[in-house]
Amino acid sequence: MPNLNDLRTPALLLDQAKLQRNLDHMAARATALGVNLRPHMKTAKSIEVAKLATRGQEGGITVSTLAEADYFARAGFTDILYGVGITRDKLADVDAIQDLGATVTMILDNFDCAQDVVTRTNDLSGRFGFLIEIDCGQHRTGLLPDDAQVLQIARLLDGARNCELRGVMTHAGHSYNCDSIAAMREVAEAERAAVVAAAEIIRANGLPCEIVSVGSTPTALHAEHLTGVTEMRPGVFMFGDLFQQSIGSCELEDLAVSVLTSVIAWRDDEARAMVDAGALALSLDRGAPDGNGDYAYGMAADLDGRPLPGDLRIRQTNQEHGFLPGLKQALRVGDRLRVLPNHVCSTAAQYDRYHIIDESGEIIDSWTRTGGW
Amino acid sequence: MPNLNDLRTPALLLDQAKLQRNLDHMAARATALGVNLRPHMKTAKSIEVAKLATRGQEGGITVSTLAEADYFARAGFTDILYGVGITRDKLADVDAIQDLGATVTMILDNFDCAQDVVTRTNDLSGRFGFLIEIDCGQHRTGLLPDDAQVLQIARLLDGARNCELRGVMTHAGHSYNCDSIAAMREVAEAERAAVVAAAEIIRANGLPCEIVSVGSTPTALHAEHLTGVTEMRPGVFMFGDLFQQSIGSCELEDLAVSVLTSVIAWRDDEARAMVDAGALALSLDRGAPDGNGDYAYGMAADLDGRPLPGDLRIRQTNQEHGFLPGLKQALRVGDRLRVLPNHVCSTAAQYDRYHIIDESGEIIDSWTRTGGW
Repeated sequence: MPNLNDLRTPALLLDQAKLQRNLDHMAARATALGVNLRPHMKTAKSIEVAKLATRGQEGGITVSTLAEADYFARAGFTDILYGVGITRDKLADVDAIQDLGATVTMILDNFDCAQDVVTRTNDLSGRFGFLIEIDCGQHRTGLLPDDAQVLQIARLLDGARNCELRGVMTHAGHSYNCDSIAAMREVAEAERAAVVAAAEIIRANGLPCEIVSVGSTPTALHAEHLTGVTEMRPGVFMFGDLFQQSIGSCELEDLAVSVLTSVIAWRDDEARAMVDAGALALSLDRGAPDGNGDYAYGMAADLDGRPLPGDLRIRQTNQEHGFLPGLKQALRVGDRLRVLPNHVCSTAAQYDRYHIIDESGEIIDSWTRTGGW
Repeated sequence: MPNLNDLRTPALLLDQAKLQRNLDHMAARATALGVNLRPHMKTAKSIEVAKLATRGQEGGITVSTLAEADYFARAGFTDILYGVGITRDKLADVDAIQDLGATVTMILDNFDCAQDVVTRTNDLSGRFGFLIEIDCGQHRTGLLPDDAQVLQIARLLDGARNCELRGVMTHAGHSYNCDSIAAMREVAEAERAAVVAAAEIIRANGLPCEIVSVGSTPTALHAEHLTGVTEMRPGVFMFGDLFQQSIGSCELEDLAVSVLTSVIAWRDDEARAMVDAGALALSLDRGAPDGNGDYAYGMAADLDGRPLPGDLRIRQTNQEHGFLPGLKQALRVGDRLRVLPNHVCSTAAQYDRYHIIDESGEIIDSWTRTGGW
C-alpha cells in the first residue's frame, strides 16, 4: 500500500475516519433538530464525499457553482440547490443541467431580476424552481423578511408559466464572526426567525412555501431548535479547519484535510524551513471572510497529522514557497510535513483530487474533485 | 463571433493585442541587454502563451511546478528550468519528464540536499543538470555568493556520474517591495552582481558555469546593464496586474488579463453590487508577497476593460461573492463587468482556460492552462 512518502508534494490529504466522524455528527444534529440535511458541497466538491454526506439523508445537496451542479448531476444527484444568486444569462445552462435528470433549484432576491428570469424561462422548455433569499443579518445578499419585494417576487414566480416558487432560504455567514457559543446561538435563532417569518408572510398570502432553508456550520452545530425550518445546508463541517476550530465548531483532532509538503530549503539563522506549499497550495486565506483574525496560512504538523510543538504556522508565502520559521530542530531538505489549513474551502479549491488516508497513514484511494465555473 | 455576453461568468479573459505588446517589449529589453529571455511560465501556464513568448527567443522557458514541466514537455518544449528547489523525491518524476524529450534543469542551495540528489541520480538512467541558487538579497532561498557551500556543491555535482553543473541563478523577489525606479535599478544591480560573483568563484576554481540567470519583471524592466549574465526569467510582464502597475512595471492599459463577472445582487443603501467573482474567481491576493500594500481584490472595469470612474475595487469577498460598493449609478442584476486583477499569477491560477479577445471584444479563441502539481 502506498504511503505519504510516495506522493509528489504538495498533495491534498483526506482522512476518511475523521470525515466519517464529522458527517455522522452533523447527520445526528439534523435528526435531533428535525430537519433535512442538504450538505453544501462547495467545500468538498467531490462525488465520493457527497455520497457519504447524503447517506441516509433525503435533503439533496447544495452547490456554489454551475460547474458543481453539472458535475453532481452527471453523477446521479437529482436534487440540487444552487446557492448563489441566479442571473437571466445562466438559465440556459441550468436548463441543460436539468436535462441530465436533476432538479436545480435557484435563489434570487430582486424583483427586476425575477422579471428578467421569468421572461427568459418563457423561451425555455424546462420547469424552473426558486427560493427567495432572505437576509438574516449578514447583510450580504437577501431581502429582509418584511420587504415588499418578497411578496412581489413570490406572486410573480407563482404566476409564471415555467416557474415555481419552492420556498425561502438564508445564510447566517455572520456566525463566523461570533466569539462565543452564546453568540452563535443568538445568530442561529436570528437565522431561523428571519426565514420562518418570510415563509409565514408568503403562506399567509395563499402562496406556496414548501422549503424553509437555513445554513452555516456554526449555526447548524449550535442552534437550540429549528422550529419552522425544513432543512439546513452546512458545508465546512465535513472537513473542519483552523478557523472553525478557533470559533469552537470543531477540535484540532477533527480536521480531516491537510496538505502534504516537502522541505525545500533550510536557513539556520531563523530556524526556518521553506516548504513546497505556498500561496497556491495553501491559498492566501488567512481568516474569516471579513478579514478578522489572522491565522497565517496553516499550522505545521508531523506525518501523523499531530501539530508540531509551539503552534508553528506558515507565516509567509510566495507562489510555490511557504515560510515556516521558529522550528525547534533543524529539518533536512526532502523531509515531509503536513499543514493543517486555515480555511479549507479555499485550500482544497486548488487541487483536482484528494488522496484518501486511513488511520495508519496509508493511502487507500484517490477521489477527484471539480473546480472552476 | 461570440462576444462577452455569451460566456458563463466568472470567466478569464486574455486580450491578445496587449499580450503581444507586452511580449514584444520584453523581447526588445532582452535584446538590448544582450541576454537570452527564458520567460517564467508560472503566470500564464499556457502552451499558446509560451509559444508566443518564446518566438524568436533561444532561452527556453522557466516553470514553477513539475506539472508545468510535464505539460510543456508534452507540447514540445525542450529546454525547461524548474525554478523551485528540488528534493531527492522529485528526481524520478524529472527523469520521466526528460524521457518525453525535454531537458529539465533543476536548482538547489544546500549541500546535504545535493548529496541526497547525487545518491538518488546514481539509481536513475538519465542525466540531470543543476543551477546553484544564489541569494541576492531577498533572503528567501539561495546561498550568498561567497558561502563555502557554493563551491562544495559545485564540486560535488561536477564529479557525480549522472549530474551536471550548469550554472547559477537568483531571483530578486524583493524588487516587488521597491517604491521607485531608482530603487529597482539598485536591486537589479544587486541581483546581477550576486550571481555574477558566484559564477566567477566557480569558474576561478576550474569548474563550469555556463548559465548565469537572473529574473523578476521589475528588474528585467529596469536593469541598466546585465554584464556577465546570460539569461533573464521574468514572468508576470506578459499580463501585468494592479500590483505591477502600482510599482511602475506597467500602465493600467497594459493589463492583458481580466475576469468577466455578472452582477448577482444590488443594495441601494450602499450603492453596492454583488458580483459572481469572489474569493476563488479573483483569489485572495491583496498585495505584494510580503503583505505590503492593500489593493483589495481587483478594480471594476466596463466591458471594454476601461476602469469605472472612482477607482472602484472589490472590497470584500466570500467564496463566490465579490462586494463592489460605492457605485455611481445603480446596476441591474445580470449586468456584466470586468475586474482587473490585483495579482494575476494568483487570479489566473483558479481557471483552466483563457478566453482570447480581440480589440473589439470578440472572442476569437480559447487557450487551456495547466495547474496543480
